[in-house]
Amino acid sequence: MHRVWTTDLPAHVGENVSLRGWLHHLRRLSNVTFLLLRDGQGIAQIVLEDSAQIALLEGLHHETVLRVDGRVVAAPQAPGGVEVQRPAVTVVAPSAEAPPIDLFRPELSAQLPTVLDLAPLTLRHPRRRALFRLASASMEGFRSTLRGLDFVEIQTPKIVASATESGANVFSIDYFGTPAYLAQSPQLYKQIMVGVFERVFEVGPVFRAEPHDTPRHLNEYVSLDLEMGFIEDHTPVMAVLRQVLAGMVRAMQEQTAGSVRLLGLTLPEVPDQIPTIAFDAAQELIWRQTGREVRGEPDLAPADERFLGDWALREHGSEFLFVAGYPMVKRPFYTHPNPARPEYSNSFDLLFRGLELVTGGQRLHRYEDYLAALGARGLSPEPLAGYLQAFKYGMPPHGGFAIGLERWIARLVDAANIRETTLFPRDLQRLAP
Amino acid sequence: MHRVWTTDLPAHVGENVSLRGWLHHLRRLSNVTFLLLRDGQGIAQIVLEDSAQIALLEGLHHETVLRVDGRVVAAPQAPGGVEVQRPAVTVVAPSAEAPPIDLFRPELSAQLPTVLDLAPLTLRHPRRRALFRLASASMEGFRSTLRGLDFVEIQTPKIVASATESGANVFSIDYFGTPAYLAQSPQLYKQIMVGVFERVFEVGPVFRAEPHDTPRHLNEYVSLDLEMGFIEDHTPVMAVLRQVLAGMVRAMQEQTAGSVRLLGLTLPEVPDQIPTIAFDAAQELIWRQTGREVRGEPDLAPADERFLGDWALREHGSEFLFVAGYPMVKRPFYTHPNPARPEYSNSFDLLFRGLELVTGGQRLHRYEDYLAALGARGLSPEPLAGYLQAFKYGMPPHGGFAIGLERWIARLVDAANIRETTLFPRDLQRLAP
Repeated sequence: MHRVWTTDLPAHVGENVSLRGWLHHLRRLSNVTFLLLRDGQGIAQIVLEDSAQIALLEGLHHETVLRVDGRVVAAPQAPGGVEVQRPAVTVVAPSAEAPPIDLFRPELSAQLPTVLDLAPLTLRHPRRRALFRLASASMEGFRSTLRGLDFVEIQTPKIVASATESGANVFSIDYFGTPAYLAQSPQLYKQIMVGVFERVFEVGPVFRAEPHDTPRHLNEYVSLDLEMGFIEDHTPVMAVLRQVLAGMVRAMQEQTAGSVRLLGLTLPEVPDQIPTIAFDAAQELIWRQTGREVRGEPDLAPADERFLGDWALREHGSEFLFVAGYPMVKRPFYTHPNPARPEYSNSFDLLFRGLELVTGGQRLHRYEDYLAALGARGLSPEPLAGYLQAFKYGMPPHGGFAIGLERWIARLVDAANIRETTLFPRDLQRLAP
Repeated sequence: MHRVWTTDLPAHVGENVSLRGWLHHLRRLSNVTFLLLRDGQGIAQIVLEDSAQIALLEGLHHETVLRVDGRVVAAPQAPGGVEVQRPAVTVVAPSAEAPPIDLFRPELSAQLPTVLDLAPLTLRHPRRRALFRLASASMEGFRSTLRGLDFVEIQTPKIVASATESGANVFSIDYFGTPAYLAQSPQLYKQIMVGVFERVFEVGPVFRAEPHDTPRHLNEYVSLDLEMGFIEDHTPVMAVLRQVLAGMVRAMQEQTAGSVRLLGLTLPEVPDQIPTIAFDAAQELIWRQTGREVRGEPDLAPADERFLGDWALREHGSEFLFVAGYPMVKRPFYTHPNPARPEYSNSFDLLFRGLELVTGGQRLHRYEDYLAALGARGLSPEPLAGYLQAFKYGMPPHGGFAIGLERWIARLVDAANIRETTLFPRDLQRLAP
């Protein structure tokens, strides 16, 4: 008998099927006992009547791996509208111990550090699985949207000779006796690749040695990066970001509807036109409406972002808001200024539900502009010689952005701690499992 | 005027179009001068007649970024069957220097170290681009095939607390004062995730600190990994590998036909049934046909693999060959033995054109088997406590494999050196660009 997924049972009513999975729970009611069998996709309800079989199962630990053959019967009161009757149950592999946390309860009843210490077990919980299915669908939506726009996928090195953005907060590594670093982002490489393919994207790990122990920091995370050439300013990059977000939400709707339902999520609507406010107009608005004197600050504080998120929802009915034209002073050396107001940049942040989700913008593209920008910061061009080749030999105006995958998922599910949204988080204290 | 790709020109005959790209070459013939404009997709031939315009272009370095507006005309003798006439040419961004290597010649005429030192320039060569389009399509084919088989994409950490397979050949990193390593493979994490989703895959970087300076070694490369549960032995894993290879070849055919043509490749045919030979039968065959006494060796030497590749092509008409059932002695601790012949493993290598491309097999799944396997090698279970949780709490029989992306591409294009197949290679000597 061919093995079927538990989620496919409704298509097999009246048939004998073979299931595989884990002993999720035994539910004993007064007149009947149910075996809940969890497989990689869902959970099946199996009716146990034979008392020897019930005794056998009662002697097994939760998470024992089972094979169950039986007959699929419509059962409107059962989850999914079907149950399996007259089962033959075989133990495939035992659980050596009783799990220290119950996976069959609607929520994991443990503190986050315990949940993470026991990740190989707790990731099996249906809610944990649902969250990582959203992440998987998001990556797929990101990639398929960009392939449809003629972007080429690249993989760039994670061991690099020089820090990307600043000398601080990089992990050092001994590379056969030469000092090296873990890449803080694929920024320099994706820019180089604009000279090759014009439009490139990468999904991969980035490493930040920030010594901050907060619910918002991870020291390794997944970055969804793109870079594109032949733009006039940062606005075409914002237009592609809108398409990417729409594609990611659509992928979740189409591929993980069950996970969205299980988590009780309302996926955001990505408007055809995401509202945009200029950085200085945003500061003016905050000052007028809250009395907080933020004008002249070089960046937005978290409270400012929350205010603007509320404002965009109220005024524009949008959970997304672009803030465009940040001051140059806090932006990295490759940032392109606004030619009409050179103290401001052709850059943007995307706020989602009142938090910064994406940073992007136009980059410098002329070789002499790079030499000037590095010189103005007292940086030597020598360690960046490879990168600078790209600009020496003709580079169009270009720009791009990066989305932090975990931050996106954290906002979607309203996670209190970003560690909930990564399979095996890396932070100041945590290096295992 | 909307910008069009050079490769889309045949659909615009009779229209005025706007192109963007790089000054690839000026070709002066006796009675006409052609501008070859290269964009992210291809090359357009543009007819220059105005002598002032020709003089302007002659004064520019190759790789200057241009905008060209003109009329598309059918020209059967031109590449692609079209050319652009009566152009208006604008400089978008200059090339600051003349490129030290000509990109317009059919082949890059420079030694590999120079090609790699100048990667931001040399990657723009049409043949280099074509190769990396194949890599991109291969990744897409890998992922889409597996999504179709209900695999879930994961991203696992690259900073790890303990070496995956052996203590040697790992890059060390100082993780906030704690020793840590760069992951040599996602092996342990993908196995853990079988307990969660049953079927998982990952595309990401792996790091090997092997101090070997050969044409076959890279110290960072891209690994296409999968792992799947509920198998009886290694043969279902081999069946999925066959589907994956077929999907990768199909993706290249469908998405990168131009690159395949440009490189003059014959893509391999993946047979419905890839021939399989048992490890000991392969040794017997080699001994009988070549007289080399290889029987009893724990592994195949490169000459053995070449012989077997030729044999499979001759006898089975297949460029692929499975060798199954390697001796346990050289395989890692998590390898599952053949229950009927415990000194041999339920593992396989896939040879492609006479070289090992993939290693895979069934893994141990019982907790006590792991404790025994580690004990037999004198290894402590303590550093692997997180990993071992997965087996403590019920794990089905499972297995998987890993394909090295660069090795796959190197075989396809018959590269003399694997460094040709990675954008920015990392080796004993090379850390930049």
